[in-house]
Amino acid sequence: MKHLVLGGARSGKSRYAESCAEATGKTLFYLATAQAGDQEMSERIAHHRQSRSSHWQLIEEPVALHEALATMNHSEACILIDCLTLWLSNCLLLNNWETMREAFLSALDRQSSDIILVSNEVGHGMVPLGELNRRFVDESGRLHQSLAAHCDKVTLVTAGLAQTLKEAATP
Amino acid sequence: MKHLVLGGARSGKSRYAESCAEATGKTLFYLATAQAGDQEMSERIAHHRQSRSSHWQLIEEPVALHEALATMNHSEACILIDCLTLWLSNCLLLNNWETMREAFLSALDRQSSDIILVSNEVGHGMVPLGELNRRFVDESGRLHQSLAAHCDKVTLVTAGLAQTLKEAATP
Amino acid sequence: MKHLVLGGARSGKSRYAESCAEATGKTLFYLATAQAGDQEMSERIAHHRQSRSSHWQLIEEPVALHEALATMNHSEACILIDCLTLWLSNCLLLNNWETMREAFLSALDRQSSDIILVSNEVGHGMVPLGELNRRFVDESGRLHQSLAAHCDKVTLVTAGLAQTLKEAATP
Repeated sequence: MKHLVLGGARSGKSRYAESCAEATGKTLFYLATAQAGDQEMSERIAHHRQSRSSHWQLIEEPVALHEALATMNHSEACILIDCLTLWLSNCLLLNNWETMREAFLSALDRQSSDIILVSNEVGHGMVPLGELNRRFVDESGRLHQSLAAHCDKVTLVTAGLAQTLKEAATP
Repeated sequence: MKHLVLGGARSGKSRYAESCAEATGKTLFYLATAQAGDQEMSERIAHHRQSRSSHWQLIEEPVALHEALATMNHSEACILIDCLTLWLSNCLLLNNWETMREAFLSALDRQSSDIILVSNEVGHGMVPLGELNRRFVDESGRLHQSLAAHCDKVTLVTAGLAQTLKEAATP
Repeated sequence: MKHLVLGGARSGKSRYAESCAEATGKTLFYLATAQAGDQEMSERIAHHRQSRSSHWQLIEEPVALHEALATMNHSEACILIDCLTLWLSNCLLLNNWETMREAFLSALDRQSSDIILVSNEVGHGMVPLGELNRRFVDESGRLHQSLAAHCDKVTLVTAGLAQTLKEAATP
């Protein structure tokens, strides 16, 4: 089961994704893409950590998500990746986005664990100034399209409320 | 009945909220949080005023919404608050946001009138530059989550069209 | 049949609109509002062109959409206009927005062909800096409301997935 959870900033998407993961009854892994580069980001990470229960094993990987996935490729695991937007941002800065994206999409297809992907919806505002910002918005939208096609379920979270955008029929 | 109406800029959320209020058949109060600080804002307020019918009593309160609510706490009233985003912005500038938010959420729970809350969805674009702007987006998202949990009904308006995100079963 | 397709940047709205058009079985016209003003825009146009099949006849018109529509006003045509956001932007820069908008809305009502309109949802981020930018967001929202009222069907595309916001009952 692969589930993409989209939402705006502070939409409650992470909490929703965590409750979906906890409902699986599987061994829970939290794959965090955030890096505590400055104080503001440290506080955001602490805020997220505080709101999770202690049943989670934390893995931190800002770039090579496919390598982290490979270490947890078994059917009794549920891996929550939060969030893909920061991962995209990290890869764009390192100039290895295409490689990392392709490696990740391939890893997803090989993965036997449950995966819940959390990503920010960033494309509903003004087209931002600056070529890098526009590339970020473009690649984010393209990534969401690819992932939505790969996933069994896609949910959009607004004000803590979930809308189902896609739900594959269970066999 | 408490109803949260979310929508982007010029999505038709105010007009939708007004039609919901008018359908209640109750005494209508329009609690406006906007202040006519500059000409552009004056024109926006005039534009909104023009589009409302004359059945409304106008109360203007940019900050202490809980005090305004207390003066209209009876079951024959329907109060439309438009909009919470400006209220948040006003409170952040006055540095009293936490106090005002808590007072407002408590007042909501004590209120026997119908309440319709209008707020802007601002968290679906790029994370904005500047710590204050990011705080605005964060607090806006958190506020929407709290309010959605407090409200019986939550609606998202896009292009004048309403999507129901939450609807509590009527007893 | 008039169909408004809204979506964020790289949401898959163009591809979805194209598949709707192809499903009509009518003669397909692609009315493009983009102008290849700089290299980045040229690449975006090329990217869009590449992803369309060869069944399309291309018309380029950045401003006077009503004139372009008049040349294809027959019931065996399906015209996809992509995208209205750029058209709005072009008209604001030329300072003829009100005239062009009214002419377009009138032309829509007279049109006997199928029309599929693609437009960017830009109003769900922070209110942008600059009066022209705010005007752009405001006019975009107002335009979407007007068009949604004129159209038989309105669809919101997120991550390549379509949500129906409006669907008029077929007679």
